Amino acid sequence: MSELSTHSEPHAFDRAMALEPAGQNQYAAQASKDYWNMVGPYGGITAAQVAQAVLQHPQRLGELVAITVNYAGAVGERPYVIEAIPARTNRSTQHWIITLREQDAQGQWSTTTTATAMTALARDTWSDDEYAMPEVPPANAVERYTTDFRVEWLNRYSIRPLLGGYPTEWDGATSPSLTRMWVSDEPPRPLDVPALTSLCDVFFPRIWLRRAKRVPVGTVSLTVYVHASAEQLTAVGTQPVLAQAQGQGFRDGFFDQTAQIWSPQGVLLATSHQLVYYKE
Amino acid sequence: MSELSTHSEPHAFDRAMALEPAGQNQYAAQASKDYWNMVGPYGGITAAQVAQAVLQHPQRLGELVAITVNYAGAVGERPYVIEAIPARTNRSTQHWIITLREQDAQGQWSTTTTATAMTALARDTWSDDEYAMPEVPPANAVERYTTDFRVEWLNRYSIRPLLGGYPTEWDGATSPSLTRMWVSDEPPRPLDVPALTSLCDVFFPRIWLRRAKRVPVGTVSLTVYVHASAEQLTAVGTQPVLAQAQGQGFRDGFFDQTAQIWSPQGVLLATSHQLVYYKE
Repeated sequence: MSELSTHSEPHAFDRAMALEPAGQNQYAAQASKDYWNMVGPYGGITAAQVAQAVLQHPQRLGELVAITVNYAGAVGERPYVIEAIPARTNRSTQHWIITLREQDAQGQWSTTTTATAMTALARDTWSDDEYAMPEVPPANAVERYTTDFRVEWLNRYSIRPLLGGYPTEWDGATSPSLTRMWVSDEPPRPLDVPALTSLCDVFFPRIWLRRAKRVPVGTVSLTVYVHASAEQLTAVGTQPVLAQAQGQGFRDGFFDQTAQIWSPQGVLLATSHQLVYYKE
Repeated sequence: MSELSTHSEPHAFDRAMALEPAGQNQYAAQASKDYWNMVGPYGGITAAQVAQAVLQHPQRLGELVAITVNYAGAVGERPYVIEAIPARTNRSTQHWIITLREQDAQGQWSTTTTATAMTALARDTWSDDEYAMPEVPPANAVERYTTDFRVEWLNRYSIRPLLGGYPTEWDGATSPSLTRMWVSDEPPRPLDVPALTSLCDVFFPRIWLRRAKRVPVGTVSLTVYVHASAEQLTAVGTQPVLAQAQGQGFRDGFFDQTAQIWSPQGVLLATSHQLVYYKE
């Protein structure tokens, strides 16, 4: 046996990112049981698969800078097809339209996810993080989060809450929905663009914190802007990142959430905005 | 001559929203000269046309709640086709994929804009604006904005700056990029979803304020979440709305901007996030 055969199992995240080329612009995929949520995969892992389909496309130009994923219908346990179409290629930017389509037991195809993305060649310019990282204790000074809310995907992250933690009393008291926490993949894994995309969805629903009431929810649209350069992601490595989210408006069945992710050195790695359905 | 023939010209915004049905899922359109920017139409008016294509589609279910528009290539003066495809229709929500395609002088088609949108049936639920409107003087107590920056679309809006106005000295001094201003269509026009979508792009580029330096810029992706109900939009009518925007991260040729729009009575009407290219 060679040395190579003794390497450990691939990380659950890498298994989830293993898309099988299946014809022009198409990839065969399946929802990861390692990242299972209550009735389907964790939204972040689906967004990461969309990012991954673009990133491993042979015609891809540049790095991922913007992605919007719309959760149109339930992703189930069946295999599905990710189609990533380069809709427009410019000299330094490229725009993508991505869909996930799944065949039901009767052979009927339906679209479960729609998305758009933009990639761009890296350029070194004047840069500035206007939204500075809040002053917080280092990750190793903060206790890991434990909760009675058990879903499989939460086992894939190490979360150390700093502010706006998971409610311990569901008493209907109104609170600011601002959450700050240190987060890393569990077990640790070097940060890359798909993992960063996934992290932008790691927060428990803002409405649960705002109302101290656990109502049914589901993200319907997630946008991620990647500010980090390849070098900045490499510099993060397996260190935890600081993740922050807050709701802005809760109205007639939908609320939105803005989010920011910083490296432990204070580099703004990504910003995100999402819209979430809630039921009364 | 009947009374009807004496009515005034349609509003420039309504002219820009007049899309011509051109086959299944397709509309013939043209960029509005009334909303012309430096080298193409104002991005907000293109986003509004995308919203309008969805809203006037015969299969549309419910009201627009989320839209992401990606500016993939220059929209010129030639006619183009907006295709709005209902990719997934659920009981109470519907997901759309929209593209703008233009034919060049050689007859070659290219995609200039990609977009996704979600519509949903209105539901009355517990609601709460966590992001409260800042305390500001009423619109009629604030002077209208005038600037040396002349583009046609700016004539279509009445802007009354409160904070973070257009720089008067381009001296390279770093400032917060937070802008607040009262804005309304000019001449006044009752607010609706396409007009609100367009308003979310009304801010001058954050980097100009942050750096006090006028570098070339262009929005590459714009996301708008509509929080307002139909009744809340009707209640605004032709009153100015409070528009706020701030940059978060400026890095390697792209910066992002979060934005909020409130009614004068303090109702959060829309939140938005956009990514903007800048050149050095």
